[in-house]
Amino acid sequence: MANLEHSFSSVDQLPTPALVIDGVIARRNIERLSQYAAKNNLGVRPHTKTHKNRFIAGLQIAAGAIGLTVAKVGEAELLQTAAKDLLMAYPAVDAARCGRLAELARTHTIRVVVDSPVGIQSLSTAANQAGTTIGLLVELDVGMGRTGAATPQEALELAQLISQTRGVRLDGILCYPGQIWSAVDQQSPALAAVSAKLQDTIDLWRSKGLEAKIVSGGSTPTMFQSHLVKQYTEIRPGTYVFNDMNTFRGGFCALEDCAARLIATVVSTAVKDQVVIDGGTKTFTSDLCIPARDSGHGYIAEYPEARLMRLSEEHGQVDVSQCAKRPKIGERVSIIPNHICPCVNLQDAIWWKEADGSLQKINVDARGKLS
Amino acid sequence: MANLEHSFSSVDQLPTPALVIDGVIARRNIERLSQYAAKNNLGVRPHTKTHKNRFIAGLQIAAGAIGLTVAKVGEAELLQTAAKDLLMAYPAVDAARCGRLAELARTHTIRVVVDSPVGIQSLSTAANQAGTTIGLLVELDVGMGRTGAATPQEALELAQLISQTRGVRLDGILCYPGQIWSAVDQQSPALAAVSAKLQDTIDLWRSKGLEAKIVSGGSTPTMFQSHLVKQYTEIRPGTYVFNDMNTFRGGFCALEDCAARLIATVVSTAVKDQVVIDGGTKTFTSDLCIPARDSGHGYIAEYPEARLMRLSEEHGQVDVSQCAKRPKIGERVSIIPNHICPCVNLQDAIWWKEADGSLQKINVDARGKLS
Repeated sequence: MANLEHSFSSVDQLPTPALVIDGVIARRNIERLSQYAAKNNLGVRPHTKTHKNRFIAGLQIAAGAIGLTVAKVGEAELLQTAAKDLLMAYPAVDAARCGRLAELARTHTIRVVVDSPVGIQSLSTAANQAGTTIGLLVELDVGMGRTGAATPQEALELAQLISQTRGVRLDGILCYPGQIWSAVDQQSPALAAVSAKLQDTIDLWRSKGLEAKIVSGGSTPTMFQSHLVKQYTEIRPGTYVFNDMNTFRGGFCALEDCAARLIATVVSTAVKDQVVIDGGTKTFTSDLCIPARDSGHGYIAEYPEARLMRLSEEHGQVDVSQCAKRPKIGERVSIIPNHICPCVNLQDAIWWKEADGSLQKINVDARGKLS
Repeated sequence: MANLEHSFSSVDQLPTPALVIDGVIARRNIERLSQYAAKNNLGVRPHTKTHKNRFIAGLQIAAGAIGLTVAKVGEAELLQTAAKDLLMAYPAVDAARCGRLAELARTHTIRVVVDSPVGIQSLSTAANQAGTTIGLLVELDVGMGRTGAATPQEALELAQLISQTRGVRLDGILCYPGQIWSAVDQQSPALAAVSAKLQDTIDLWRSKGLEAKIVSGGSTPTMFQSHLVKQYTEIRPGTYVFNDMNTFRGGFCALEDCAARLIATVVSTAVKDQVVIDGGTKTFTSDLCIPARDSGHGYIAEYPEARLMRLSEEHGQVDVSQCAKRPKIGERVSIIPNHICPCVNLQDAIWWKEADGSLQKINVDARGKLS
């Protein structure tokens, strides 16, 4: 039984629910970003939170990515075979996390974002114990209000502390413009504000003799406008590799750029004007679509008039009242999820489909690395 | 490194985020239901979707549960070592799922809920191929509007089909009153309607010579009122073993009955009146609290005035503006999640804490069994 799944030769044979990646689309998404970045002299450091596996990380590196981004030390440990240069774009303040990062720095270029003196001290202590050096990026809050130094002055104080602390190296600035969710042609003013705040910080640092060699930014919605932020030396989009209904409905990609589809089976048609599929919040997550909160829980490709309106843990209730033709019980449908990152995080494995229809099982091997 | 986690001797040493179960509370929750059921002559068939592991399933069986409930065939396959009697309270219509259930029926009492002729035929075909028999419960919709026969007449037609079909056995009726979410002392009218519809169905079946030996109902919110539905022979609550902010804020348990706490570390205090913890939607899920949608994403036990207002994938933003004393960076806090079932489903392992403070790692071994 154990290896039975490797014998599936087509999507129609997969047990459902199953998340299938169109390899042609995913490779095209990777290539498109690579070309944009090359043209604009930007490094690409994909955030691996979206796919959480070594196979796709390898494709990103092969397409010219300068390194990888992670949120967890466990993800960095897992992905150390895929890249020599890893950035943890997440604060590390406790001794255990910092110690594991300092160990990784024996063999890898390890950088971590910081927004507190405690974080700097903890990473320094760990690096000194391991006899390694950890590169630090000071996080600057550019409007998200989540983490990061509020002002250029606060960012300077952190930079000065780093420059005076043994075991850590001041490498630059990191920001995450995650609040910018406007259509691409409306992003210029928002990105101009990001650019101005970065420049103020860079200038202030420079006036004190400190240099930001790396300025790391980017998100999937702002990705193809990154050239408007001249300060960026690299960008860290994650979702772009698959896209989802958030990026499509936000106007950041076409439907043909959505690489991931959740294959589900209709398991009940007992309630009038409704069919039920075998995927719920434990398959899709309960995330609503950010640019269209009333649009349901995903787009059913074969039945565009159907609406996946309600999820229980394992049931998806689909309103088919507007469908001329309706899915039958036992039929399979394919759904583009609202938010692909937490959806992938619910799967132990996903299926990579090549142009010839062949299927490859990919373990989501960095999944579940919580710390 | 691999077995390092087994050496943690206290919660304070666990890498965060970590989900810790207070074994004293969980055992008390199991025992309390066991006593209620015994007093009211009801079978208990816990829904394992909440904990998804063999250890806790074993405790439930040891406390007198007559069998286990699952939503997925993979869960049944995993839990076959914990119980001889398994109910899949979820429709199976495709040949692959039905085939695996028919195989399990070689060694176990297997029952499945049905609400369609296609489901009955598929299970019959699979059972006949395996030379086994699968017991069927006809689902009756008692107001949820999700799955199940709409009327006693439709339920009768399914029962008649089952009674004429080889390989399947008509065992009774299943309902899920999941829409009843009112306070315990207000549930009587809602449960009276459930009881009346069940009785109409039982009477109609009896008039045609068909018997419902099993009448399976129950949910955690209606659990301790199950005696008001005299037709029930067994109940299938799941959440009760841990409880969560849904059951607490709904008025169905006390805060002291909540067994599961997510231990998180404060990783940033950079933004005014806010601290950020190392858990977001990939740790808690994005589920809002059903009876209190504006209450945030969980209850922080050490800081009751704090509100976990916003989750990103890995960040939890806590509003501490109302806190006299505020958590410091690096400090650990413990949080009761809104909805414990999908939260457990995000963990590869949880930690079971005994009265003496000792910790045991429990693999969430039925997690990720999507089909």
